[in-house]
Amino acid sequence: MPTPLQALRDAMAQNAIDAYIIPTADYHNSEYVGDHFAFREYVSGFTGSAGTLLVFPGWAGLWTDGRYFLQAERQLEGAGIRLMKMGEPGVPTLEGFLKDSLQSGQTLAFDGRCVPAGTGRKYFALAKRKGVKIMDRADLASEIWLDRPPLSCAPVWEMPLEYAGESRRDKLERVRAAVKKEGADTLLLTALEDIAWLLNLRGGDVDCTPVFLSYLALEQSGGVLFAQPAAFSQDIREALAEDGIRLQPYDNVYSYANRLKRDHTVMLDPGRVNVRLLTSIPTGVKVLEKPDPTLVMKAVKNETERKGFRKAHLEDGIALTRFMYWIKTNAGKLPITERSAAEHLEGLRKAAPDYLMPSFDPVLAYGPNSAVIHYSPTPETDTEIKAESFLLADTGGHYETGTTDCTRTYALGPLTREQKTHYTAVLRGTLGLAAARFKKGCTGANLDILARQPLWELGLAFNHGTGHGVGSILSVHEGPQRIHWKPAAENASLEAGMVTSDEPGLYFPGEYGIRLENLMLCTEDRTTDYGTFLSFETLTLTPFDPDAVDPSMLTEREKALLNAYHTRVYETISPHLSPEEAAWLKTVTRPV
Amino acid sequence: MPTPLQALRDAMAQNAIDAYIIPTADYHNSEYVGDHFAFREYVSGFTGSAGTLLVFPGWAGLWTDGRYFLQAERQLEGAGIRLMKMGEPGVPTLEGFLKDSLQSGQTLAFDGRCVPAGTGRKYFALAKRKGVKIMDRADLASEIWLDRPPLSCAPVWEMPLEYAGESRRDKLERVRAAVKKEGADTLLLTALEDIAWLLNLRGGDVDCTPVFLSYLALEQSGGVLFAQPAAFSQDIREALAEDGIRLQPYDNVYSYANRLKRDHTVMLDPGRVNVRLLTSIPTGVKVLEKPDPTLVMKAVKNETERKGFRKAHLEDGIALTRFMYWIKTNAGKLPITERSAAEHLEGLRKAAPDYLMPSFDPVLAYGPNSAVIHYSPTPETDTEIKAESFLLADTGGHYETGTTDCTRTYALGPLTREQKTHYTAVLRGTLGLAAARFKKGCTGANLDILARQPLWELGLAFNHGTGHGVGSILSVHEGPQRIHWKPAAENASLEAGMVTSDEPGLYFPGEYGIRLENLMLCTEDRTTDYGTFLSFETLTLTPFDPDAVDPSMLTEREKALLNAYHTRVYETISPHLSPEEAAWLKTVTRPV
Repeated sequence: MPTPLQALRDAMAQNAIDAYIIPTADYHNSEYVGDHFAFREYVSGFTGSAGTLLVFPGWAGLWTDGRYFLQAERQLEGAGIRLMKMGEPGVPTLEGFLKDSLQSGQTLAFDGRCVPAGTGRKYFALAKRKGVKIMDRADLASEIWLDRPPLSCAPVWEMPLEYAGESRRDKLERVRAAVKKEGADTLLLTALEDIAWLLNLRGGDVDCTPVFLSYLALEQSGGVLFAQPAAFSQDIREALAEDGIRLQPYDNVYSYANRLKRDHTVMLDPGRVNVRLLTSIPTGVKVLEKPDPTLVMKAVKNETERKGFRKAHLEDGIALTRFMYWIKTNAGKLPITERSAAEHLEGLRKAAPDYLMPSFDPVLAYGPNSAVIHYSPTPETDTEIKAESFLLADTGGHYETGTTDCTRTYALGPLTREQKTHYTAVLRGTLGLAAARFKKGCTGANLDILARQPLWELGLAFNHGTGHGVGSILSVHEGPQRIHWKPAAENASLEAGMVTSDEPGLYFPGEYGIRLENLMLCTEDRTTDYGTFLSFETLTLTPFDPDAVDPSMLTEREKALLNAYHTRVYETISPHLSPEEAAWLKTVTRPV
Repeated sequence: MPTPLQALRDAMAQNAIDAYIIPTADYHNSEYVGDHFAFREYVSGFTGSAGTLLVFPGWAGLWTDGRYFLQAERQLEGAGIRLMKMGEPGVPTLEGFLKDSLQSGQTLAFDGRCVPAGTGRKYFALAKRKGVKIMDRADLASEIWLDRPPLSCAPVWEMPLEYAGESRRDKLERVRAAVKKEGADTLLLTALEDIAWLLNLRGGDVDCTPVFLSYLALEQSGGVLFAQPAAFSQDIREALAEDGIRLQPYDNVYSYANRLKRDHTVMLDPGRVNVRLLTSIPTGVKVLEKPDPTLVMKAVKNETERKGFRKAHLEDGIALTRFMYWIKTNAGKLPITERSAAEHLEGLRKAAPDYLMPSFDPVLAYGPNSAVIHYSPTPETDTEIKAESFLLADTGGHYETGTTDCTRTYALGPLTREQKTHYTAVLRGTLGLAAARFKKGCTGANLDILARQPLWELGLAFNHGTGHGVGSILSVHEGPQRIHWKPAAENASLEAGMVTSDEPGLYFPGEYGIRLENLMLCTEDRTTDYGTFLSFETLTLTPFDPDAVDPSMLTEREKALLNAYHTRVYETISPHLSPEEAAWLKTVTRPV
């Protein structure tokens, strides 16, 4: 049997393809990608969540970023694939490399459904300049991947109005009004989270993200949902039909786009649409490229969703607090590993009647593993947890009423002075950002320093965002807001109703890492003659670890913030604990 | 005698002009404009520093911003000129108004030397769309303004190397290298501050800004300075010639630009060049539009300039501290007005041997006047200072070695609890920003919240920038850095060597205003494994007013910051005071 890479090269030869690009993407540029779309992993053996493979007949290279250099080096060993370390000096970009290596008359191919419009356009422009042919419908995965997992087709379910807080019909009208205001006739919606939000439907086609594979063409009256009919019950089909939404097969979206009329204006988000869908639209149709109007609507939670998030965080807080008690009591006594600890926590979450599933793969990282930012324990790396050092737990769940995402770092034994200094500095950052009171209009770039300042004062820093938006039983990472000091294309103002994480950290490779993350609901603080001011309500309800805090580093204000938070945690969580757990929580949450 | 407006309309009729635009600008888009260029004021009677007059045969309107609504209303009364309040609902922009009122075949005219390229381009584009003719060399000021003040031609003087810290020759080479790196042959420099900085020359053609009217064409070897030859001594001419700089008459720049060769690349800053100069460049010459490379070089002060700023601030601090003693001791006892107080402070500054001149018109604003952000006392508004309320003093000077800009607000009698709350909140902002320690790469938008947070926490706010760059014996306002939470086109990273103001405030119309401003030198804090960190050294050396501080509002950290600053003020300033003043300063700077 030829290797997958050899099989791919054979298929390239048969199809007269000189270069083939395999990105890591589904047809919707989703953050997480289902097994059906893991073609890059199949061909290269590299399992990281980000990377693009470029294959020539006599050369192959994989472009990935700093998070995955070590892993990719290990997994690509002997595969005949060169690791291209993105951002490292002397390493060309994939585009730059294509520009230098493609010859006039050659053919560059890819599956345009897996390539975002922006990237695809660059390939087309490059091909034009170089006299290279583009084959953007080359689906070599279907040709050579024999045991390919089928397209997921999990049942679609209704998000009840009592949790969604706004009916599908009302949402459809609100979005139609926004589309009309932009002067467009049809909105072509391709982001899975946005379609799920808009239709008050959920699915199960992507791990930890309860969405369903689909496109939605929202017309000024009615609309067409392109999805897998088998995933829909008769009841849901009828409910959709009542709201004017016709169901058509998933792949029909391309012929729908191709049949759009010349006098028609279609609105789409170039950041979310794939290049094949974009190029399926005939010239003459006016394409209005705008961020999806659903993006901000979905991010701003309504009153029902806000209540739902609070309820989910109470249930999550009970599980997390029980977990903290269990791990701090039993580390070094019971045989516990990172994976068994994750299972234990999952069991505690499952005790909540509303619990649905994890909102992302749990990160339980012990000792030196906690310094690896995107670590998630595998059977190979699973590490025994002892009564020393730090355990970092970054986990979250989807509940029927909302979604959680929390990181705590637990001291499992005596800490050094330096470890406490580092923990306390991170804690000061988490508390400082959560206490912000700010003018409406501020972005996360304005607020970020409140989380980083205590670290920067020590000459320390972390290299990730401070905060991301959180979807409501959708993706745990959603825009348009973010908290990061560096400028970015997408950096929307914070608005009342948005849920955002607050997660500074510190990482010492080979030693330990610390991250402390709460979710915060942005709320209106007050409106005065000077404008509207916003602040945050902390949603997450589980203690920080007092054994890791150096109170002498805290200002009086920070002590008051910590004590107020811990009092709230005790008051809300303790009634749901056993007497033993409650007594322990009382100690843990005592004022500093 | 016809009024100036009538004379203008007569001249428009003679020249077949249907609409004439008079901006408030010299030929260099300078912040302050000399008397020769005050044509808008001459025609309209409105004396504010910002505004554009548009004149039709039967209608005239003046566009100005919120700072000047009251003043413009008063000054335009009976003049037959409609006040167009920029930014108010229902008020069209000047461009929008032109678009609606100009008819095909009509002629729109202006003096293109007074119109920045960006604005001029919009007029050209609008004219093209509407079929309107543009006359961009219509200098009606010369035709109708009989008693027009001549073009200022103050003597140009050398900035000694011992204060400039880098020779003209070295600067010229550094800028040439930057121009070459961009692939350009010639840099057309039109910003007066940048030319003065680059040539180590100063002049006196603009109030408070010691620059000289000029353009500089910097060629890869040599260059041409277009200026008024009468302003240059033989010594300076020879020194310039030695460095390869030829002197040519001021207006020759237009024919120089017109004679640029087709194979030539000229680099210019579209934000600073006027539209006539831009359109003087023949098509075929490649124009590279980039921010002037001098902008950042000038903003980053070298070691000599940093020392010079410290020396200037010591001298300024002595004057300011003496002034504080004088005003707090004598208010209500001696007859003092805002203007006589300003004169007294100017006298104290003049006692310093290095003092040159004010760096801007002094703002001495007493009581309710202090709530008017751009107030500067005139003979009509001059107010008597009593032993009550606040006096706000925003003043600054050019010294031989550097430039200062300081605001203090003094309590001249017993304050209410609320007044103290407001003063202390502003003080917390000033102290908080100055104590920032931050990652290299941060912009002012990242840091701004440190100054505003204490106000926002009270539901209060101010509507101006928190900080601006300060030139070295140039303009007291310079880019490219700024401190403001709102995004702006020009918002460069803060770099070690930049001098920036830190000036939060609060304004209660009809009651009082408070602003506390220090200048800060950005310095490298340290470089660790986590990157380079920057911080600020406060340059300004004069006390805050302890009578206005409510210590119970200060955190321990803020008390420590205030006490450390006051100790430094006492230690550096008291040796230069009389025993009586020094004893008073000891009390004023005692720890809280």
